[in-house]
Formats: sequence, structure tokens, C-alpha cells
Amino acid sequence: MRLTVDNINQHVVAAKYAVRGELAVKSEEYRAKIAAGDAADLPFEHVISANIGNPQQLDQKPLTFFRQVASILENPQLLQSEEALVQHLGYKTDVIERAKWLLSKVGSVGAYSASTGVPAIRESVAKFIERRDGFPADPSKIYLSAGASSGVNTLLHTICANPNTGILIPIPQYPLYTATLSLLNAKVVPYLLDESKNWGTDLETIRASYDKAVEEGTDVRCIVIINPGNPTGASLPEEDIRAVLEFANEKNLVVMADEVYQTNVFVGKFHSFKAVLRSLQKENPGKFDGLELASLHSISKGMVGECGHRGGYFELVNFDPEVEANIYKFVSIMLCSPVIGQCIVELMVNPPKEGEPSYELYQKEYNGIFEGLRERATALHKAFGEMEGVECAAPQGSMYLFPTITLSEKAAEAAAAEGRKPDEFYCMRLLEATGICVVPGSGFGQKEGTLHFRTTFLAPGTEWVGSIVKFHQEFLDKYR
Amino acid sequence: MRLTVDNINQHVVAAKYAVRGELAVKSEEYRAKIAAGDAADLPFEHVISANIGNPQQLDQKPLTFFRQVASILENPQLLQSEEALVQHLGYKTDVIERAKWLLSKVGSVGAYSASTGVPAIRESVAKFIERRDGFPADPSKIYLSAGASSGVNTLLHTICANPNTGILIPIPQYPLYTATLSLLNAKVVPYLLDESKNWGTDLETIRASYDKAVEEGTDVRCIVIINPGNPTGASLPEEDIRAVLEFANEKNLVVMADEVYQTNVFVGKFHSFKAVLRSLQKENPGKFDGLELASLHSISKGMVGECGHRGGYFELVNFDPEVEANIYKFVSIMLCSPVIGQCIVELMVNPPKEGEPSYELYQKEYNGIFEGLRERATALHKAFGEMEGVECAAPQGSMYLFPTITLSEKAAEAAAAEGRKPDEFYCMRLLEATGICVVPGSGFGQKEGTLHFRTTFLAPGTEWVGSIVKFHQEFLDKYR
Repeated sequence: MRLTVDNINQHVVAAKYAVRGELAVKSEEYRAKIAAGDAADLPFEHVISANIGNPQQLDQKPLTFFRQVASILENPQLLQSEEALVQHLGYKTDVIERAKWLLSKVGSVGAYSASTGVPAIRESVAKFIERRDGFPADPSKIYLSAGASSGVNTLLHTICANPNTGILIPIPQYPLYTATLSLLNAKVVPYLLDESKNWGTDLETIRASYDKAVEEGTDVRCIVIINPGNPTGASLPEEDIRAVLEFANEKNLVVMADEVYQTNVFVGKFHSFKAVLRSLQKENPGKFDGLELASLHSISKGMVGECGHRGGYFELVNFDPEVEANIYKFVSIMLCSPVIGQCIVELMVNPPKEGEPSYELYQKEYNGIFEGLRERATALHKAFGEMEGVECAAPQGSMYLFPTITLSEKAAEAAAAEGRKPDEFYCMRLLEATGICVVPGSGFGQKEGTLHFRTTFLAPGTEWVGSIVKFHQEFLDKYR
Repeated sequence: MRLTVDNINQHVVAAKYAVRGELAVKSEEYRAKIAAGDAADLPFEHVISANIGNPQQLDQKPLTFFRQVASILENPQLLQSEEALVQHLGYKTDVIERAKWLLSKVGSVGAYSASTGVPAIRESVAKFIERRDGFPADPSKIYLSAGASSGVNTLLHTICANPNTGILIPIPQYPLYTATLSLLNAKVVPYLLDESKNWGTDLETIRASYDKAVEEGTDVRCIVIINPGNPTGASLPEEDIRAVLEFANEKNLVVMADEVYQTNVFVGKFHSFKAVLRSLQKENPGKFDGLELASLHSISKGMVGECGHRGGYFELVNFDPEVEANIYKFVSIMLCSPVIGQCIVELMVNPPKEGEPSYELYQKEYNGIFEGLRERATALHKAFGEMEGVECAAPQGSMYLFPTITLSEKAAEAAAAEGRKPDEFYCMRLLEATGICVVPGSGFGQKEGTLHFRTTFLAPGTEWVGSIVKFHQEFLDKYR
């Protein structure tokens, strides 16, 4: 019997991943047409991929210190000509020192590392967490991963025991979570984020979702929080995090904190789940000692933006040692995460310090990227504010805006005639008219009766923002 | 309810992966002790990791051309000082040209690529397959992956539909296959390789395994072949491959050809499944047009040995387009394989050509590695030949030898008293006595009543070989 869509793994067939779905595929076709010089019939000259947080595909330049170190890791023979590196290629001495140190700990970046990552890099990560949180971290509980995605994959594979396992997932969410649960044939227990409160978590909503699932017989085991939010951009206040931890503790839920946007925060301050947990433990001795927390971070986002290198880590707090042994076995089957990506994790958690030769340039580049993101987010938010029927929370963090759009009955009918949801229809027309690829809100989940789209604010310039405004007005006029 | 080994995913708990199991963990503990200067009580001074094909952890140096190109990909600012690269750092002009070409196709190696890989690299792979096989290859059927392991993971996830799906797996095998089937809760349909014929495939054995599984109601869908073999080192003759393809065609089985050791061949010639399939199709028009083939390759092995970079690809032949769409979706959930690893795939399939500036050094390094492996394989094989109760097929390919060991009843009893299989017991004592880590045959599967271990022949020097010989004699004497 040949393989067909009807006889292969139906959990793969059922999985949905809109970020790289039909719109993304179509946008790549346009890009190829333009590259082939065959674009005379297109009403735009460029494709703008605002569908995915891929900083270096757009305007973001890599951080010089990181890439200089990486170049030596790739070719350690460069160290035979240190003088030339310094005099002719502008490498500072701290670049050379860091590369030597990493090579002494890693060996060759072409060799497999230990499955959980290079021990010295796990130690650097633990020290970073200590500095960030003001509480100790244990290097043996740090697992280096191929981006945060592979960490999520590992953790959900371990936690989900059978089709009755339920995981509390925020809606809207980054679809990695629902897609992975679909592959694992486990249950999504959705809880809606509160758009009226800047997409914060609402404990009553979470509790109601949990209670409903438990009543239906679901074995709810874990709550996922994405903070700062994807696709929402929300940056959670400390009291929301406390409330989630209190609830998880009460219900014996594993807390999975996806914190990959922790440096992309414009409003307020990032609070890590780990730090808030440790504070709660200090205030309430013994009370939280049974709570299991997994928190994830990545080199893909922030001012680092090195997603093509597939690096990241997760930290486990208070997991059973036998469970950890199984997590180790799971990651060892895929051998190890990319070693050069592990090294970039080290650079992310241990960047040049004040007074070191590379510090000034690093700081300038880092701040430049941060300010550029803020400016573009603000410009985009302003444009949305001027668009009829569009509402958008002020940008708080991450790389995304997630505006609500209100479309007419006529537009909804035209969408239905094409077999599409209204937001998909809108985003498809936007792509066709402007070359701008965004993701419809239905790809992340949204409250019934509401429509959204997610756009990154990574693309340079303001021309494309103008194109959205113009398209939107024409769309409204057409379906009025 | 807290997570425990009893309530987490029991398919993860059931999975076995001996290559990085208890022995490997213990060897890393020894390595850490030695590094900490705390090894006075150990009877050896070094740990030798012969448990895993990790060339650059041991003697193998990276190929200069590859790493020079990679260093520029990591830091394209080096191209602002081309003169310095050439005059002070010894970079040849073809290194610079290749790096420029890759950058023009890839953009930044820090950006996500398309989920199936950078289009231009997929084209390079297709051209390589055409040159290798003498038959055309379609770039749109090439999927770049994070090593071959992630390709195997993708394919088995798609093919295995339910607990009744069976996959024909050679025994002994690289345990990635049985571990992944365990995670997927699908059935291993084992077929024994024939040790008496240099570990070749025996069609009657395959047929008997298939028939038995079908009789038991198993839905057998796919046959896996590892050629050259892991752990056996066998290099299959063309007639064995023809026989497997004929059988798969008769039974409508997907053929999954793991060809990661295709350049590690000392005896005879590597025949790719794709080339043999195309020959069969030419000879028998129409007969094989329904056969589905997936073949996998990797940058981890061969003279490249860049396993830490996690690069590889698989090629699909004759898969249903809707099935391919689901494979695309599956890989897109993990975004893309590491981009610098993709670039090294490009260098592997398109190395310096005769007459190009880097050719001479590349050729010298490549041949030096090949000859070094052959010499060490031969020396190790010779040593095994001199050991009492050890039999080992002559080295044919891959990076491993897989000798049979005959142990006494007394040794088996001592093993049982420790709750170990006799081969595990033997390998544990070997590690404790010599610091040499090998993998017991039971980690790969072996014919009932036989015992083996797998060792790589990557470690430099001959001293460690002497240690094995000495340990073996002492072990025999102790348990005589």
C-alpha cells in the first residue's frame, strides 16, 4: 500500500502551523518570481516577510563581537595569525580571548558535544540566570537545545502520557504548542488572554478553563505561558506571574515559561518565572517546594536574533531525577544541539562587559537594534491607530503587533465563497496587493467573533506601513 | 500530581539508546575526574570515547577549505579585507568566491532559511546526486535536515500511523531506529543481518520476518537499510540492493536507505539505492514506478566529520505530493535546520575541483583521513584476530568494527549477579580497567546466543588497542 494522506500518521495531517503555511509558501513564490525578473504582472516590487520573527532576514545586523568569535571557532587556524586578526581585520583582544576559552572548553565545533550541551556553557548560563534573578541556578539543570522549539518539543514529549493529557495553552499562542500537542495526540486546554488588559493573563479565565477540562475528565498537567507574549507582545506584570504560580502550585501543574522575548521589552520590566518563584518560596517557606518549572530561552530573538544558528536552553526546577533521566535520554537520541549555536548561547549570556575592548561597539549595536525596534513598533502602532476598524494595544514587547480588525458582512461572505476564514481572506488579499506577508489571527487562535493578524515590526523603512494603510482602505471600500 | 517516571510518557521511558547510555555517562564522569586532577585511583590516564562516531573529538581534523569558508559566512565583514585574508591568513581565492556565492544565496547564516533548506543548496545537492548516480535528481525533492537523525525522525513520524504500523529494521542496527519507533509506539519488525556473509542482507531472512509480521496482523510499511552498515561496517554488493528493491516493490514497502557512511568504504564500491533503483527502472520499464524511496546523507561522517554542525539531507523518490506536503509541514514546525550546517552540506557535495586553488590541500587532507581510518581499522582488526574467543569480519566500511566475543559461563553468571547482560558486563569492566568506552552488542540487537561490542576505529595511536588486548586476556583468565 502506497503512502497517502489518508493512511499516514493522522496526527501529522491534523497539525496546523500557519506561520509557515499557505501564505508563506505563496510569498516565497512571489519572491522567486521577482528574483527571476518575471514580476511585471505583480503590483509590488518586493516581498516583505512580516509573518515570522526572522530578524536577520530583514534589517537586523548580527552583533559584531558574536560573529568575530564564531569565525575563529569555525577556523581556529586564524589564531596562528593573531597579529593579522588584530591589525588588518579589526578583531579586539577580547574576541581572541573568548574564542580561545570556548575552544578550550568545546574542542572542535564540528564534534558532537554532550547531549545536554558543553558543560562550561551550561555553567555560563547558570551564572547568567543568577545575575539576572538574584537567586542561584544549577548548571546540571540547564539543557542546551536547538532553539527554544526543540526544548518545547522535548518537554511536551515527556509530559504528555496519553490522549487524555491536557496542557493549558494561552489563546492566542505561538502555534508550535498546538501543533506539537496535535502530533502527540494530547489535549489543548485553551485559556483566553485578556485583550482589554493588554493581553494579560486573567486568573479567573484560567481557572474556568482548568475546571471545565477536569470536569470533562482531562488530566491537566501543565500550564504554558509565553512572556513577553507571542503573538500579543504583552509583557506580564509581576502580580500576574505570582497568580499563575499560586494557581499552578494549588493544582500541581508543571509551569512551562517560554521567555524567548525576555530582552524585547519596551514597557515595564521583564520578570522571570524563576525569580518570581524563588521570591514566593522565600516569602512562604516550604509552600512552593513541590512546584515544577521549566523555563526556556533562545538566541533567536532579542537583539541577538541568531535564529538560523538554532541555539537555546531550558532550565528545570524541581523535576524528579528519574524524569530528568528520561529527558536526558530523549535529547540524546538526537545526539546534541548544534555546537556553534551552543557557543552563541554562551556569548548571549556573557556579552562583553564594561571596560572590555569590544564593549563599546557591542553596546552601540545592541542599543541601536533595540531603539530601531521600538521606533518601528511605534510607527506601525500609529498607522494602525489611523486605520478604520483597526484597534491595537500599544507595543509592550516581543517583535509583534496583533491588531484587531473589523471586517464587514460582505467581506465575510466573499471569504466564505472562497472557503476561507475572513482574516485569512484579508491577509491573502493583502499579500496579493502589497507583497506583505502577515499571519491571520486564526493561526494563533482568537476569541470567537474577533479577527486579528500578526505582523512583525522588523522590516525597515515606513513605505510598507503605508502600503498596509492604503490596502486596508481599498479593502474596506470594496466590501462596504 | 507531580511528574514521575510512572506517569510521564511511557514510550519515552521504554525507549533505549545505548550509544549515550550508562557506559557513556560513566565515561564522562571519569573524564571530568581526570580533568579535575582527581584521578589517582584510576588505572588509566585518558578516557577514549570509542562508543560514538565523533571524528573531531578524536584525531580527525576539519577540512581546511570547509572551515575557511565557514569563518567568512560567520563574519562576512572579513570580506572587507580580502587582501589580508589572502596575504596574511592564507585564504585562497576559491574560498572567498565560494563564501561570496553562499552569502548571496543564503543571506545571513543567522536568519531562518526556508524549512526545507536554502533553495540553491538543494540544487547543489541534486547536482551532486546526478554526478554520483548518473541519473537526474530533482532539487524540490531534497530536504535539508539537522543531521540524518532528524531526517529519520521526520520520515518515521510521517509513516507510522498507529501502534500496528511495522517497520523492517536490520539487526544489529543503529538504535536511533528502535528508539524512534518506541517513541512513536510503532512496531519494530526485526530482520537479522548475516554475520557469516560479512553482515550482508539475506532476502530469505527478510521475507520470513515480513511474513511472520503480516501473519500477526502487523501493517508492515517500510524497510530500513543502513549501507554501509552501522554497527557492522558492511558495504552491500549491488545484487543485495537489487534484491531488497525487488522485494520492497513486490510488497509495496517504502525503502529508507541510510547512506551516511557512503564515503567510508574500504572494500568494493558504494552503490546508492537511488542509482540501483533507476537502473532497475531502465531495465524493467514501468515495473518500479510505484516504489517509494527515501535516502539519507549527512555531513557527520565520512572525511567531513562535521557532526557538531548538524547538517544532512534526505531525497524523496516517488512520494505522493500530499504526503510530501505533510512532511513539509512537519519540518516547518521546527522552522529549519541549522543554516551553517546547510552551508557545510553544500561544501560536502561540491568540494574544490581539480585545478582550483584549494584542490591540492583538500585532496591531501581528504586522502590522509581516509588512509588513517583504513590503517586504524586494519590494526584493530588484526588485534581482534589475536584475541582468544574473538571473531571479527574484515573492515569494509563505516567507522566501526563489531566483533563477536565468546564469554564463559562463569562470566555470564557474574554478569547476571550484577543484573547485567554478559556483553554489558564485559564493556563495563573494560571501561573501568582501561578508560575505553565501547557499546555492548545488545545496544544494537544481536542474534540470540551471540555477544558483540561496537568500537569506532577513530581514536589515534595503537596504545589503546593494546589495552583492549591486555584487558581481554585478564578478563578471560578471571572468569575461566
